[in-house]
Amino acid sequence: MLGRLNHVAIAVPDLQAAAAVYRDTLGARVSAAQALPEHGVTVVFIDTGNTKIELLEPLGEASPITAFLEKNPSGGMHHVCYEVDDILAARDRLQASGARVLGDGNPRIGAHGKPVLFLHPKDFLGTLVELEQA
Amino acid sequence: MLGRLNHVAIAVPDLQAAAAVYRDTLGARVSAAQALPEHGVTVVFIDTGNTKIELLEPLGEASPITAFLEKNPSGGMHHVCYEVDDILAARDRLQASGARVLGDGNPRIGAHGKPVLFLHPKDFLGTLVELEQA
Repeated sequence: MLGRLNHVAIAVPDLQAAAAVYRDTLGARVSAAQALPEHGVTVVFIDTGNTKIELLEPLGEASPITAFLEKNPSGGMHHVCYEVDDILAARDRLQASGARVLGDGNPRIGAHGKPVLFLHPKDFLGTLVELEQA
Repeated sequence: MLGRLNHVAIAVPDLQAAAAVYRDTLGARVSAAQALPEHGVTVVFIDTGNTKIELLEPLGEASPITAFLEKNPSGGMHHVCYEVDDILAARDRLQASGARVLGDGNPRIGAHGKPVLFLHPKDFLGTLVELEQA
């Protein structure tokens, strides 16, 4: 079921400063910033060749990463995203095994325009897991 | 400078239980466990096709992940590892920019038999970063 690692998301308090760390200090390829108001974040993508790092800064009043940054004011690894071929089949299999899918259990359209789900960190080794239909 | 994402490491309190989550619940390809006493961890590798997830369990009295697991008893994302072509050139560039290299600043041989360094999380968005010479 589990496919490629689509990305690792790192929440940051200051996206321009964070992008500069990856671009200038680490010498990485960093995209321009994109505001995604429907997801409550502004994001830059770092292309590592085989996968992506996404740096996320809160956008708006109800950003889903605000609480995380209150606990981790310098930033930190927020979630990993794995690709699956069929997100509804993956959801059904996971729920049948007792794993908790966040929200109402229905996929929504993620930052890449594809259906995504998030899984409860307590069921996945303290790690917030996103699944994205590839 | 920054190359491929070599792996994401997740620290876990119980490696067999964690391997079962990835193998049975998520349907991933999970290796047999390998004890790495010189690194203070036992590890399993998950092959996602494009990169690896490493699940780490403490091994021995002075494991480098014990303190992390005391703060995160369910487990959690511990570090990311990026490949570089020349680890000494990377270290020199990073130190010249003011970034802190952990330990005595000299590479040691990592879990894959290649030279590695760790960078201070406070200089990299709250994320512990490993560099591995590819």
